[in-house]
Amino acid sequence: MRSGSKFAALLLAGLALAGATPAMAQEASAADALFVVDTLFILLSAFLVMWMAAGFTMLEAGFVRSRNVAMQLTKNIGLFALAAASFALVGYGLSSIDADATIPGFLGAFKFGELGFAPAGSVPDTSKGGPADAAVFFYGLMFCATTASIVSGAVAERIKLVPFFIFTILLTGLIYPIQSSWTGADGFLSNLGFVDHAGSVTVHAAGGSAALMGILIIGARIGRFSKEGHGVPMPGSSLPLATLGVFILWLGWFGFNGGATLSAGTPSAMADISRVIVNTNAAACGGAICALVLSQLMYRSIDLTMVLNGTLAGLVAITAEPTHPSMLVAMLIGSVGGALVIVIVPLLDRLRLDDVVGAVPVHLCAGIWGGIAAGLTNPDGSVLAQLVGIAMICGFVMVASGVVWLALALSVGLRFDAETEQRGLDINELGMEAYPDFVTYEDSA
Amino acid sequence: MRSGSKFAALLLAGLALAGATPAMAQEASAADALFVVDTLFILLSAFLVMWMAAGFTMLEAGFVRSRNVAMQLTKNIGLFALAAASFALVGYGLSSIDADATIPGFLGAFKFGELGFAPAGSVPDTSKGGPADAAVFFYGLMFCATTASIVSGAVAERIKLVPFFIFTILLTGLIYPIQSSWTGADGFLSNLGFVDHAGSVTVHAAGGSAALMGILIIGARIGRFSKEGHGVPMPGSSLPLATLGVFILWLGWFGFNGGATLSAGTPSAMADISRVIVNTNAAACGGAICALVLSQLMYRSIDLTMVLNGTLAGLVAITAEPTHPSMLVAMLIGSVGGALVIVIVPLLDRLRLDDVVGAVPVHLCAGIWGGIAAGLTNPDGSVLAQLVGIAMICGFVMVASGVVWLALALSVGLRFDAETEQRGLDINELGMEAYPDFVTYEDSA
Amino acid sequence: MRSGSKFAALLLAGLALAGATPAMAQEASAADALFVVDTLFILLSAFLVMWMAAGFTMLEAGFVRSRNVAMQLTKNIGLFALAAASFALVGYGLSSIDADATIPGFLGAFKFGELGFAPAGSVPDTSKGGPADAAVFFYGLMFCATTASIVSGAVAERIKLVPFFIFTILLTGLIYPIQSSWTGADGFLSNLGFVDHAGSVTVHAAGGSAALMGILIIGARIGRFSKEGHGVPMPGSSLPLATLGVFILWLGWFGFNGGATLSAGTPSAMADISRVIVNTNAAACGGAICALVLSQLMYRSIDLTMVLNGTLAGLVAITAEPTHPSMLVAMLIGSVGGALVIVIVPLLDRLRLDDVVGAVPVHLCAGIWGGIAAGLTNPDGSVLAQLVGIAMICGFVMVASGVVWLALALSVGLRFDAETEQRGLDINELGMEAYPDFVTYEDSA
Repeated sequence: MRSGSKFAALLLAGLALAGATPAMAQEASAADALFVVDTLFILLSAFLVMWMAAGFTMLEAGFVRSRNVAMQLTKNIGLFALAAASFALVGYGLSSIDADATIPGFLGAFKFGELGFAPAGSVPDTSKGGPADAAVFFYGLMFCATTASIVSGAVAERIKLVPFFIFTILLTGLIYPIQSSWTGADGFLSNLGFVDHAGSVTVHAAGGSAALMGILIIGARIGRFSKEGHGVPMPGSSLPLATLGVFILWLGWFGFNGGATLSAGTPSAMADISRVIVNTNAAACGGAICALVLSQLMYRSIDLTMVLNGTLAGLVAITAEPTHPSMLVAMLIGSVGGALVIVIVPLLDRLRLDDVVGAVPVHLCAGIWGGIAAGLTNPDGSVLAQLVGIAMICGFVMVASGVVWLALALSVGLRFDAETEQRGLDINELGMEAYPDFVTYEDSA
Repeated sequence: MRSGSKFAALLLAGLALAGATPAMAQEASAADALFVVDTLFILLSAFLVMWMAAGFTMLEAGFVRSRNVAMQLTKNIGLFALAAASFALVGYGLSSIDADATIPGFLGAFKFGELGFAPAGSVPDTSKGGPADAAVFFYGLMFCATTASIVSGAVAERIKLVPFFIFTILLTGLIYPIQSSWTGADGFLSNLGFVDHAGSVTVHAAGGSAALMGILIIGARIGRFSKEGHGVPMPGSSLPLATLGVFILWLGWFGFNGGATLSAGTPSAMADISRVIVNTNAAACGGAICALVLSQLMYRSIDLTMVLNGTLAGLVAITAEPTHPSMLVAMLIGSVGGALVIVIVPLLDRLRLDDVVGAVPVHLCAGIWGGIAAGLTNPDGSVLAQLVGIAMICGFVMVASGVVWLALALSVGLRFDAETEQRGLDINELGMEAYPDFVTYEDSA
Repeated sequence: MRSGSKFAALLLAGLALAGATPAMAQEASAADALFVVDTLFILLSAFLVMWMAAGFTMLEAGFVRSRNVAMQLTKNIGLFALAAASFALVGYGLSSIDADATIPGFLGAFKFGELGFAPAGSVPDTSKGGPADAAVFFYGLMFCATTASIVSGAVAERIKLVPFFIFTILLTGLIYPIQSSWTGADGFLSNLGFVDHAGSVTVHAAGGSAALMGILIIGARIGRFSKEGHGVPMPGSSLPLATLGVFILWLGWFGFNGGATLSAGTPSAMADISRVIVNTNAAACGGAICALVLSQLMYRSIDLTMVLNGTLAGLVAITAEPTHPSMLVAMLIGSVGGALVIVIVPLLDRLRLDDVVGAVPVHLCAGIWGGIAAGLTNPDGSVLAQLVGIAMICGFVMVASGVVWLALALSVGLRFDAETEQRGLDINELGMEAYPDFVTYEDSA
């Protein structure tokens, strides 16, 4: 028998009872409908966030030099697979604070993610509300993987595969979930009044913090800074792929910000989601326009890479609070994100920090700005609580990832030898080329 | 408290009242469900239409020469951001005719798009039906941006950034919204019986009209026509990116045509949407097959660029009326679109019109054909009303955009100097290359 | 009048009747809601499966050499269009066994797919449950086109366009639909207890079987094997495009496996779909990780192409039964798929079989494994029934497609002449290049 007729039969059976029954059946039906719509929307949102993995991959493949593209592709597909395993086996239990928490408010339980799922074919208890357990797990996993994707671009073109993958496993199994639990239900930062809708801080500033520590510890690519300390540009191999990556991320962000309340089945939830989508788009546009105008004014010609990163910074900045601002304010919040890119990129150059894709300005700096902005625009937010949360999250991730990066540097080692790095990781390490048919300046030199 | 339990509580409270209450509560519940599903579907559709911006970008990046790819990417991401700002600030108010219309039937109100949105957390009044205001705005914005995307490809490889962006702002803030209001509720063309489901005319022929005027006024690329007037092919730099663009547009079109009624929550709406999707796909296939066969017959070898544009022309042609035709008729309507590409492309060459991506055959010509076809297949349509609508819309857009293009030509100027154009806009204007690692024939010459 | 208010009016009218009416109206409303949600979800799923066509296209464009990329793009967009026409005109009727079946259990009816669709604007009878007819057709069409996409990559770089397109028409109009009807309602394999959720066997092993026969009959590319019989690698032109293709397929697979029950409107359906998504993702990750580790162990360096195909093999393997396994078991099933790639790819080389993209290991071998695994994990499955089903389906497709390939070889001929093949199909057959601006080693040699 089809589930449909079962459902109708259930309703009919319920309605055959006493006078109060229609109301009760209707309540059950409303809970069921909520469950269905919430689950459907969270799955759609998760698909969009999963798609962001392709966006990061294309962005990074476009921003690295052709000799290291295959390596970057390998890192991105590998990290996504490892993040899934690591989050499922350890991270998911740590990512929320429940009755089994190891330290209430601070550290969740060590348990395998599968455990809570309803078995196949069972009828879920919809009275507790919310999407299906497995859908919530999947959505959380996609956020965790996003955090890892942020790191891979920053340390590109010089890090070895094995330490990068080990870092990914620890980031997605321990570091990310522990701090993300702080901002969920019963987390100590939530209790302090810290707000972060979809993770300007929890995902983006956290990922950016891990990236910054990686950049600091691994050091710059050979030749990236002259002996006098000036930055030497190393242009990426394919701006179309980088631009495609940004469009993919932009689209994916509608799921990232749209699905974050895990609720969609009521008119007010749907109206709020609509606001979130409009504001997310407005912030991206604000970031793009601001970077467009400022790069023209400051460098006398528009810089497409700045526009691309400005767009992403706009998206990062609105992520902590996309529901309450008006569209114009959202555009302004995004614009500040775009401006941060224009300011921070040359600053990193002056500090001799080599951030290949701009993860620090886009994810760390715009993420912190987004966290602060949420204190200004969320009626329940306070800038003080936001600053505390930002300091706790970024501090924890910096310390934890710093320890991991250092341990890896001292054990397996982080970098290739100089010759391998200069000749390109693809040929020397993978034994393949990303574009084997095409003559590059490198080859022809 | 979760929204879910609020909703159930509301229902229970309602049902605790008098005997008529279950019916009233059920009516409220039905209106709520409609609001939720309509909004969810329109958001999904809008995401797909947003994705079309990536499709246009990849199509155009693939169809221009490598020396101008970064410029084309910059134009596309910039136009999308500027369209969002311009439509929000001015265009949205003009895009529909309501009680505040400046000239009833012809010119909407000048008002900021934000104004009508329900505030965050409020419970929307679902009794008026339809999706959330913000979702309707977002969907409309995506259509407006699509119109601007059509123009950018046609005038590629020679137009300066600033006049292009100014044109985009005026097109998306004034020209597009004014004519699109004519075909909405209480628009004078709607009142005349003009039908255009998702915009074969309002979006595609309108965008194509603006593109044609741009091509006429800006003139052909240097070297595009020999002194004897023969067309000199300038093949695009990447057919895989162009093909990816077409697949993206094809997918996006399901949202473009599927969401256009703004209604999804009833069985008949969903059945009609299913028909629309089937017919949209059938028309794309018809356009592709027709271009495949005709290019083989006429040129003795299949031309992939013709197949790509034939597919798009099929999609454009069905857009005015994808609900009523049978699948076979839809395929036929798309085939005629594909045939138009095969006929119009060489004709433009003979007229020495340089349309880099084929915007005139695909969007203007197939759009006009789609508008006429709707008069034949829509039971409420008439070919006469369609011809009047097409003439009004294309005439208005041609005059308005012609004035803007001319004003820009005479003020800031539209074109780069000849040397910049011949050496490539990327290096000379942006100071960057789209593919800096790769040796091109241009470089090696 | 909007459909929304019609719906509410209908409800009110119903409720104005006798005491039993609220229950009846509620039942009607529940059936309507199921119809709406089922249709919405199946359309969303079908959009994702359609997107897989872009994934195959990018994968294959990346895996063939630059001289044959335009041809591969043409084949992929052409096959998708032709599959749509062929399935609509003939295949759809054959793809299910109903009361009109030509041979009950074995051969459906020859009828035009359009016939059953509800006319535009009609109110569907929702009491029979399930999604709208047109949506079911569209979803089925996307599966059929996927089967054809599997073949195009295997026989790339040497097959002529016309025989390839003729094969596609016969595969999608006859071969695929006939065998897919065996596993649907009242199909003889279903009656035997064969289970195959979304088609590890019906789509992937079937497509892989057609590909294997094509490879056998058309023979290897010139130069692919040395005189001594050793495999000579012919690396693909763009690993970023191939990786993009895999990410697209991964995303699309959520629709492929998620929508396969055609049911989404009840809590239990949605909970099961959530499990399916989690398991589909886990299997992909298992396949990727396994290929990553094994390629490192066996070849001493990670091979990105193996990781890409391992990911796809993981997805293929879980497709027959993604609902019942736990997440860890799903990851294991996917891992075995990834391991098969590592084992089968060198085996094909030793057998001098030239499978350009790896269709045989990924789709045929992992598909068979997935079919067997379903016998182990589905509570209603049996390994014996699975083996019978696999033998029947693969046997039928091999014989039928072998006959077609042979007939084509003996009539129009399958291959280009040696010179055309060696110089590249794009220039010689299409008269265009996929990357005309770039200097390739081929050109510069």
